[in-house]
Amino acid sequence: MEKITIVDKLNSFTDHWNPRIVGELNGQHVKLAKLKGEFVWHSHENEDEMFLVLEGWFNMEFRDKTVRLEKGDFIIVPRGVEHRPVAPEEASVMLFEPSSTLNTGEIQNELTKSDLDWI
Amino acid sequence: MEKITIVDKLNSFTDHWNPRIVGELNGQHVKLAKLKGEFVWHSHENEDEMFLVLEGWFNMEFRDKTVRLEKGDFIIVPRGVEHRPVAPEEASVMLFEPSSTLNTGEIQNELTKSDLDWI
Repeated sequence: MEKITIVDKLNSFTDHWNPRIVGELNGQHVKLAKLKGEFVWHSHENEDEMFLVLEGWFNMEFRDKTVRLEKGDFIIVPRGVEHRPVAPEEASVMLFEPSSTLNTGEIQNELTKSDLDWI
Repeated sequence: MEKITIVDKLNSFTDHWNPRIVGELNGQHVKLAKLKGEFVWHSHENEDEMFLVLEGWFNMEFRDKTVRLEKGDFIIVPRGVEHRPVAPEEASVMLFEPSSTLNTGEIQNELTKSDLDWI
């Protein structure tokens, strides 16, 4: 039961699209990630996913619309919905999702991170 | 799949110790609450609870220590652990917890909010 200072955790890594785990509760993980550039289109069959913007901004692309998310905004992507985060500039986000969630969902490729580090 | 702007939601209410629901995913609720003063000692038998400070600061008291949480800090209180939030000045927090969670846990009193509003 220690406090976690988010900015300290964000300052501890620099790479993009590589979420780190910073907390676990009720079978869910709290993760931090830095985004820059275009991710891949993907969906999560069984997991809803929350993105909360901590620094910067990014676009969450859906097949039928794009939602611009700025610092202090969040969005919940329901299971099964295809999405693609695109960050023209670096953005930092907090993710909240089941501990089983893979970053690339049903897609497995070179961006897939299957064994995330705790920081 | 709309974005939620946290500050707009916070500006939509003023009362203390009365969490509002702003999102739901994987059986968990995302809530916002304003704290001021001393809450009651309580625990949640089956639910871990996360507090993320959005504005201000508060102390999370445990039976054996006090953790001061400032803006950008979070803490996860495991199920079964007695805790009491104390906010000398107004603070705003985001809560993540199972949708079954009652704010006063195993205690039922005049502070208990059993039918939270969505905002």
